[in-house]
Amino acid sequence: MTTFEKARLQSSERTLPGRYCTDPAIFDREQCEIFARRWVCVGRAEQAGGPGEYFLAQVAGESLMVIRDHQGVLRAFYNLCRHRGTRLCSATAGRFTALVRCPYHAWSYRPDGSLAAAPNMEQSPDFNPADYPLHRCHLAEWEGFVWLNLASQPTPFESVFAPLIGRFGAWQLSALRLGARVTYDLRANWKLIFENYNECYHCPPIHPRLAQLSPSDSGRNDLMEGPFLGGYMGIHPGMALTVSGSRSRPPLGSVAGEDLQRAYYYTLFPNLLFSLHPDYAMVHFLVPLAPDSTRIVCEWYFDPTQIAQPGFDPTDAVALWDEINRQDWQVCEWTQQGVASRAYTPGPYAHSEGLCAAFDREYLKALGC
Amino acid sequence: MTTFEKARLQSSERTLPGRYCTDPAIFDREQCEIFARRWVCVGRAEQAGGPGEYFLAQVAGESLMVIRDHQGVLRAFYNLCRHRGTRLCSATAGRFTALVRCPYHAWSYRPDGSLAAAPNMEQSPDFNPADYPLHRCHLAEWEGFVWLNLASQPTPFESVFAPLIGRFGAWQLSALRLGARVTYDLRANWKLIFENYNECYHCPPIHPRLAQLSPSDSGRNDLMEGPFLGGYMGIHPGMALTVSGSRSRPPLGSVAGEDLQRAYYYTLFPNLLFSLHPDYAMVHFLVPLAPDSTRIVCEWYFDPTQIAQPGFDPTDAVALWDEINRQDWQVCEWTQQGVASRAYTPGPYAHSEGLCAAFDREYLKALGC
Amino acid sequence: MTTFEKARLQSSERTLPGRYCTDPAIFDREQCEIFARRWVCVGRAEQAGGPGEYFLAQVAGESLMVIRDHQGVLRAFYNLCRHRGTRLCSATAGRFTALVRCPYHAWSYRPDGSLAAAPNMEQSPDFNPADYPLHRCHLAEWEGFVWLNLASQPTPFESVFAPLIGRFGAWQLSALRLGARVTYDLRANWKLIFENYNECYHCPPIHPRLAQLSPSDSGRNDLMEGPFLGGYMGIHPGMALTVSGSRSRPPLGSVAGEDLQRAYYYTLFPNLLFSLHPDYAMVHFLVPLAPDSTRIVCEWYFDPTQIAQPGFDPTDAVALWDEINRQDWQVCEWTQQGVASRAYTPGPYAHSEGLCAAFDREYLKALGC
Repeated sequence: MTTFEKARLQSSERTLPGRYCTDPAIFDREQCEIFARRWVCVGRAEQAGGPGEYFLAQVAGESLMVIRDHQGVLRAFYNLCRHRGTRLCSATAGRFTALVRCPYHAWSYRPDGSLAAAPNMEQSPDFNPADYPLHRCHLAEWEGFVWLNLASQPTPFESVFAPLIGRFGAWQLSALRLGARVTYDLRANWKLIFENYNECYHCPPIHPRLAQLSPSDSGRNDLMEGPFLGGYMGIHPGMALTVSGSRSRPPLGSVAGEDLQRAYYYTLFPNLLFSLHPDYAMVHFLVPLAPDSTRIVCEWYFDPTQIAQPGFDPTDAVALWDEINRQDWQVCEWTQQGVASRAYTPGPYAHSEGLCAAFDREYLKALGC
Repeated sequence: MTTFEKARLQSSERTLPGRYCTDPAIFDREQCEIFARRWVCVGRAEQAGGPGEYFLAQVAGESLMVIRDHQGVLRAFYNLCRHRGTRLCSATAGRFTALVRCPYHAWSYRPDGSLAAAPNMEQSPDFNPADYPLHRCHLAEWEGFVWLNLASQPTPFESVFAPLIGRFGAWQLSALRLGARVTYDLRANWKLIFENYNECYHCPPIHPRLAQLSPSDSGRNDLMEGPFLGGYMGIHPGMALTVSGSRSRPPLGSVAGEDLQRAYYYTLFPNLLFSLHPDYAMVHFLVPLAPDSTRIVCEWYFDPTQIAQPGFDPTDAVALWDEINRQDWQVCEWTQQGVASRAYTPGPYAHSEGLCAAFDREYLKALGC
Repeated sequence: MTTFEKARLQSSERTLPGRYCTDPAIFDREQCEIFARRWVCVGRAEQAGGPGEYFLAQVAGESLMVIRDHQGVLRAFYNLCRHRGTRLCSATAGRFTALVRCPYHAWSYRPDGSLAAAPNMEQSPDFNPADYPLHRCHLAEWEGFVWLNLASQPTPFESVFAPLIGRFGAWQLSALRLGARVTYDLRANWKLIFENYNECYHCPPIHPRLAQLSPSDSGRNDLMEGPFLGGYMGIHPGMALTVSGSRSRPPLGSVAGEDLQRAYYYTLFPNLLFSLHPDYAMVHFLVPLAPDSTRIVCEWYFDPTQIAQPGFDPTDAVALWDEINRQDWQVCEWTQQGVASRAYTPGPYAHSEGLCAAFDREYLKALGC
């Protein structure tokens, strides 16, 4: 990317050139420079709740095991044996009662990653088991979410996430539990999904039901530059972002006052869309698969005491957002098709798309442009 | 391609080297140098008959809208919004009652391509709607067919098509209407299909039924060099190119004399196979999808007064050609497989394959070789 | 590959770097330097038993016809016409009563490859049929197996196969006939399958049934360097490698003595796994399709007098090996996934994996590293 292009983007706020959504070389560079170097959110600590429990995560094309060791510490390892490279786990989640045993030659690892047994290798005089722990990756927890970083020396999580840490205490997020999950596969670049989430200019045309519950001009952004962008939108008095339009659950944690009529929406670079409602939280995990292909896992979290109720039913929140999600994915796919055209030239962002331009700036910086 | 190869091809009339049918780089170059610069036939004017009616066309990987404006003028635009690049139309044909409205943020365009409304953009002082018309492409009509050209300054249609203009007046082609359409997807390079159509050397071995109706040695070529190649073949007296072998419709327009026992076959570089029979016309539109993949849309046109008859049935013509088409596509696919071999070397064209060699020369010239 | 890497591999016996199983450029180089230059086993002479009978073979992405001429000589030709390159045969096996006739323009070849007829070409004064025989490839037969070599001047078969010729006389392999065939498609590099077959270190963890019949530590290698690697493993007295554990057929040929309680296993570079049991033979033909994709055809051969018995049933041998095959393919696929990781580094071979290291050395030498 030339200096000229950078200057133009910063001064006149235009969309990115089309190649950022279509060029396989840029996609590969994103995987290396962004997804393999930034903190990427992969799930919830509850998914590996007890000793020996694990779940598989996918970051930058890598399969990683997130496993809780016998001291209760959550750890992350590349999902491959140090002997011949074989996948250790193929089930997406499970529990190891003692050791993680490779299915090929039975090399076995402790949940802390150290090599416990390597049959026959005692015949190799130079072989020292201490040289062959599982390859580890960095892990951080925040508000119940698990973040991985594939860099050898990542910027500390607390430093990167300083703008967010402590900000959402009222929702008591780490206590929440998964209530629903929907997975979507889109034919669109991951950045188009971030840009879509970063503005409500599109809400009146494509989300008519949302406009009835939450005025599209009611938003105020409070994070406007950097890796975390967003703010809140008002909810009509007495209403909630559910299919029925009314709230059927008490507020989370200590949510009170104005927050009872607000939904907070943030994009957390590079892979999380983060939504806080008075009575539930919702996130979208993005997994870029190809320049024009992204998997999105959308999860809804609720107060565990509500989930434990006999009649607990998250459908009112899930069905509303599933509808909104599908409307958004459709226009993202149509946009992917258009930006691939040789006739496409970057278009002018509207004032209400300021966060899209801020996202693009952050993205280009992360890519080293 | 080296000078040596060109000289060899011109002097000894051999088939093209195999890479022209297999190399993705050559395919990309064809898309840029040929399909994005030449006049490409995309359909019939009747497909957008009234004001606001449109159909989508695909040229060189681009989606284009062919739309009739309120003054009755047919126009062509790239199918993407000037704001974020979103596809404006996803239905392959339809009618806009007033404006073409982008589904994402409701930017709206008049059928002449000008931007009529861009919500919220009034807050951007530098924004001038006149700067954001739809990207247009050049369009020409001839004999009821619609041709697009993606070049910024194409050679005028009338200049390129001078050898054809006025030649087929007797058939009154612009008055004809679509009677049938069949779409085929082939695993073969588009040029093998042109070469197949340019000779009847293969007719005795693979089209036994055709040989009964039209002697394979009855042909006379009248266009033998340049972008348009072909001529006529005789039809046995009293017969027609139909399944029954007899003609069930009156001749088109003012077709008379020798033309009543002739079928005219031309290849129109780079994407049309053009066939005129005494009582119907047939064309094949070629859409190259990959080096080894081509979509072919075959259409049959008839006199509208015949189509309006209660018992109108085009099956006698359609079924014959569908059989011949499939026989041809099969050998084209087998040839695609063979020319991909490392053992393949260009083979000698027979005398009866002179138009194939002429097509190859025109193709190499168009590619800039 | 750097000199440093070669030295390291030879001294400390580690697995190959991951790119050898993932890089398309290395795959292409293997196709050129190995599969298009070495003797590749493609089937059995019995598949083209009589004059005019043929079968199609696939080597290095090429389709080849193996055909028996009217003098009874087996010959191999590239499956494409010298005229336009069209595939001559599309059926995978069959019989030509007289000539091999191209389906496109009826050029016809004798089973010895010479051009017998080329309609219309008599009009081309420079055309000499003797200039257009089918492109031939080298063929060798050994023990009833057919081997092709695409090189223009291959190392003679007898020279390459000297370590094997005469070694397996007792089994009288050329007299055997096909009893069963199973085809597998794997998502794994072909070399992982060779490495898998070259050690029984993995037998206890993944083949529990095999361990009951044949002790995993009973093996002795007798070919330990070069293109052919392997040796034998003992079979428990009174048992056989069948589902029931017992032998239901008499020994092959003159198999006697210790060989009645042994199974011989060899890898024949670059595409055959070769297994001799007292009462049947089994081979795996490997066809690499992509860096991460291999087709394996497994065939079982028996004494024809046994096959002719009314109740002949090869299931006891086939079902055992089909189970073992699938267990092996699963770990090969898991290994393919792991070696593609950026965290993967070559791991240490155990002593019992010495043949894997020997295979890797032979492979690197063949690749020109």
